[in-house]
Amino acid sequence: MHDFSTPCVWMPHRVSYGETDTMGVLYYAEYLHLFERIRSEYIRQCGMSYADVEKKGIFLPVREARCRYRAPARYDDLVRIRAASEWGRASLRFVYEIWNEDKTRLLAEGMTQHALVNAQSRPVAVPDWFRQLFNRLQ
Amino acid sequence: MHDFSTPCVWMPHRVSYGETDTMGVLYYAEYLHLFERIRSEYIRQCGMSYADVEKKGIFLPVREARCRYRAPARYDDLVRIRAASEWGRASLRFVYEIWNEDKTRLLAEGMTQHALVNAQSRPVAVPDWFRQLFNRLQ
Amino acid sequence: MHDFSTPCVWMPHRVSYGETDTMGVLYYAEYLHLFERIRSEYIRQCGMSYADVEKKGIFLPVREARCRYRAPARYDDLVRIRAASEWGRASLRFVYEIWNEDKTRLLAEGMTQHALVNAQSRPVAVPDWFRQLFNRLQ
Amino acid sequence: MHDFSTPCVWMPHRVSYGETDTMGVLYYAEYLHLFERIRSEYIRQCGMSYADVEKKGIFLPVREARCRYRAPARYDDLVRIRAASEWGRASLRFVYEIWNEDKTRLLAEGMTQHALVNAQSRPVAVPDWFRQLFNRLQ
Repeated sequence: MHDFSTPCVWMPHRVSYGETDTMGVLYYAEYLHLFERIRSEYIRQCGMSYADVEKKGIFLPVREARCRYRAPARYDDLVRIRAASEWGRASLRFVYEIWNEDKTRLLAEGMTQHALVNAQSRPVAVPDWFRQLFNRLQ
Repeated sequence: MHDFSTPCVWMPHRVSYGETDTMGVLYYAEYLHLFERIRSEYIRQCGMSYADVEKKGIFLPVREARCRYRAPARYDDLVRIRAASEWGRASLRFVYEIWNEDKTRLLAEGMTQHALVNAQSRPVAVPDWFRQLFNRLQ
Repeated sequence: MHDFSTPCVWMPHRVSYGETDTMGVLYYAEYLHLFERIRSEYIRQCGMSYADVEKKGIFLPVREARCRYRAPARYDDLVRIRAASEWGRASLRFVYEIWNEDKTRLLAEGMTQHALVNAQSRPVAVPDWFRQLFNRLQ
Repeated sequence: MHDFSTPCVWMPHRVSYGETDTMGVLYYAEYLHLFERIRSEYIRQCGMSYADVEKKGIFLPVREARCRYRAPARYDDLVRIRAASEWGRASLRFVYEIWNEDKTRLLAEGMTQHALVNAQSRPVAVPDWFRQLFNRLQ
């Protein structure tokens, strides 16, 4: 599902009790929270926080999300999350992987597709400053 | 902790998998979500949704929350939640109880204390229309 | 993405404050919670709760989840969720739609793919009683 | 509400989009998730993870939780959380504070009261190894 040939960003995450469920594993919706965390971190490492991107009038609502769950994560596990990005014509796509602590086991992989819209939720062309931001990571 | 001598509002809630944790019970932070659900329902039964209260310029940020957990709720349990309200001078207090399905066992009780503020987060005196709203329940 | 030619189950859901985000809309991970809620309701309307399915030794861990977000839902919106199911050889697939209150606007559609495993997380053939359970809905 | 004369543990936390609500601030139930995160970290810094405490047969269900909300936290804010603990006769109490990034502003303070129970949910006396664990922090 994923192409990690482009630069990627990693972050660790400790699974909390509140993120688990009765089956004793990280609840499936929580993976989308983790994808959002690494997405924010990715943009921050490009040199601007997503909060500041929004202040400049660009919003990135999610149009589609997918996740494949390969192996469970449990309470107190330290997992490693990575993300990379791909530009579409009028959209932005992030791909994700979640690995166990020593990166020997892929736990999950996913993707999110984002529109670029202004504060009035209208689609906008990708501004140069925003596209260039992403090039800084390379 | 609670005074239910004033009118109260009930609503049922089915415990979902995502609300439980590794211990197999409703996670302790989820009770505050349930308190928010019954609070919204309480205001709706007064004749106006909280969304409309906000549109009229009144916001009710939580200043304090408490919950006592007496017995656990599990996945798929149907619980019964009730709320009542009390006016302070410049504040509003809701009290809550969560019961098992047949209302024979008190599972939890709690309270939230709210400020009344305007869109600029400034404290405001309780508007007459808002106080009267709550009287409709009696 | 979805085939609703088979029987489906509907349930309403009121969007709570805690389910929304800074953009003022239902947060994208919350849709997976809603999918889980209607999935539980679907199985319950077949005549057995998913909690009882687990007690009989059958677990349905999610292997893949997808959601397409077409239009936002906001705080206090009443949305209508429906689900249908499809059998694979050794798997079960649920498809979902979320509509606005009067069912004139499709807000989101999604699917989840589930393995059938026993308490030791080993894949199991679909038991007859479980397959027949789903036929009761037709 | 809090006594931080005993040793305390700090951890940073970045506020995610999914933790905020329509008011644009960290949702009030999320503070209890943060309290749980620092509680786990506190026990880990004593030399044993809470996951291992449970494996030794000791569980710490929450009997009461309180939080006072003094100032909001917003998306992308880095907040600083600290916790300290106090022993009761048959219980354990954690107290918490959440500060802004440079620790100049107290955002929230809270506490949780925990019972000590075994795997059958029966109250147990505090085992020596568990009490000594907490002394290591001093």
